[in-house]
Amino acid sequence: MTQNVYDDERFFSAYSQLDRSRRGLPGAPEWPALRAMLPELAGLRVLDLGCGFGWFARWAAEAGGASVLGLDISERMLDRARAATTSANITYRRADLETAELPKSSFELAFSSLAFHYVVELGALFERVGRSLVRGGRLVFSMEHPIYMAPSRPAFDLGPEGKPTWPLDRYSEEGPRTTDWLAPGVVKQHRTIGTILNLLIGAGFAIRHVEEWSPNDDLLAQRPDLADERTRPMFLLVAADH
Amino acid sequence: MTQNVYDDERFFSAYSQLDRSRRGLPGAPEWPALRAMLPELAGLRVLDLGCGFGWFARWAAEAGGASVLGLDISERMLDRARAATTSANITYRRADLETAELPKSSFELAFSSLAFHYVVELGALFERVGRSLVRGGRLVFSMEHPIYMAPSRPAFDLGPEGKPTWPLDRYSEEGPRTTDWLAPGVVKQHRTIGTILNLLIGAGFAIRHVEEWSPNDDLLAQRPDLADERTRPMFLLVAADH
Repeated sequence: MTQNVYDDERFFSAYSQLDRSRRGLPGAPEWPALRAMLPELAGLRVLDLGCGFGWFARWAAEAGGASVLGLDISERMLDRARAATTSANITYRRADLETAELPKSSFELAFSSLAFHYVVELGALFERVGRSLVRGGRLVFSMEHPIYMAPSRPAFDLGPEGKPTWPLDRYSEEGPRTTDWLAPGVVKQHRTIGTILNLLIGAGFAIRHVEEWSPNDDLLAQRPDLADERTRPMFLLVAADH
Repeated sequence: MTQNVYDDERFFSAYSQLDRSRRGLPGAPEWPALRAMLPELAGLRVLDLGCGFGWFARWAAEAGGASVLGLDISERMLDRARAATTSANITYRRADLETAELPKSSFELAFSSLAFHYVVELGALFERVGRSLVRGGRLVFSMEHPIYMAPSRPAFDLGPEGKPTWPLDRYSEEGPRTTDWLAPGVVKQHRTIGTILNLLIGAGFAIRHVEEWSPNDDLLAQRPDLADERTRPMFLLVAADH
C-alpha cells in the first residue's frame, strides 16, 4: 500500500493550510495550464485519481457539467470532500491508486493532480487507467517534476551573484525520495521524464502535450515572490489520449 | 544562418580529437541507446541531419544496407567525410538545417546526432523533416539535454559530502546559451523537454520513445570515470514516427 501521509495528523494539518487546500483551484498556480489541457467537460464521465478535498471534482461537476468518480487514499480528505459537496454527480470512494480496480471503458477523461509521484507501480496504474477510458479518452495529470524531486538536498543554493541555483543530483537514479515536506519522512517516487512518458506510451497512450510548469511572465507580474521558481520546474503536466 | 562553429580552426581541431570523432560510433557512449531506437535499415532511404564526419552514414550504408543523404553545414567536416567514404550509397551535401529544402516523402528514416541544439527554428525544421518522410517514417535524434544546457555556470559543484551537484538555473528561460566548449562563444539553443516534444507533436509526429541518457550500470563498470555523469543527464534521445 502507498504511504498514506495525508492521514498523518501533522501532515494533514499543514496540508490543510496550503493555498491550494484553502482556496482550491485558484490557489494552485499551475491550474490554468492544466485546465487548458482538458477537453470540454459537459456530459463527460470523469475519473479523478487522488481527488483530495474534491476541489476539481466539484468544479468539473458543478461548473463543467461532468459526472465524477473521485478516488483518494485518505479517509480524512474524503470526509472533508463529502462534507463540501452537494452535487449528486460526484461519487467519492476510498482507494489506493496502486491497486484500485477501475471500471472498464467507463470514462472520457481521467484527471490527476499531484498524486502520481507517490505511486510505486506507475506503469501498472497507467495500464489500468487506459483500460478505464473509452477509445480516444484523455488522461490529464500533474505530478512533481523529476528535477524537483531528484536531489539529495532539494533546496536552493545561492550562486556566485546571489542568484539561486538548484543543486541537482541523482537525476538518473530512479527510486524513492524521502523528504520532510509538511511532515518528516514523506516518500515520493522519482523517475525521469523519459521513463514517465515511455510508461504512458507502453500503456497505449499517445502523448499530446508535455509542460514543465514554472511561473510565466504574467503570473510573475502578479506574484513576484515566485521569481526563484523559474530556476527549475516544479511540476510536470501531461495530456495523453488512449 | 546557424553559427558554423565547426569550420572555426580552433573548434575543428579540438573536435577532431574527441573520442567520437576519432573512433566514430563506438566512441560515443550514447550510441547503443540511440541504435536501439532505429528500425531495421536494409533498403531504407536515410536522411542524416548534421552528418559531421559521416560515421553514422557509413555505418548505415555499409553495415546496414541503407542509402543515405548526409547534410552538414561544415565544409571541412564534409571534406573529411567524403575522403573517408567509398560507398556509392552515400551522398553528402552542404546545407544549413535552418533553411535546407528537403525532398518530399523521400525517406523512411531521418537521423540526427547532437545537431538540433544549434537550431534556432526547431519547429520549422521538424515540419520540413516530417514532410521529407514517407507515411510512417521515423525520426531518431539525440541532442544536448536541456538540463545540461540551461545553467549560467554549466560545471559541477561539490556538495556537502564531496559529491557533485549540478547548479541548475534558468531552466524555464528558453533561448540562446553561449559556452566555451572547445572554442569560446559557441551558441546553443536551450528549450525545455516539453517544448521540444510539443514541437514534434505539432509537426505531426507521434512520440515513440524518450530517453534522458546517462551512463547505465554496465557502462559505469567499464568506464568508472563517467560516474559523475549520473548526477544529471547529458543527452536527450527521442524516437518519433510521422
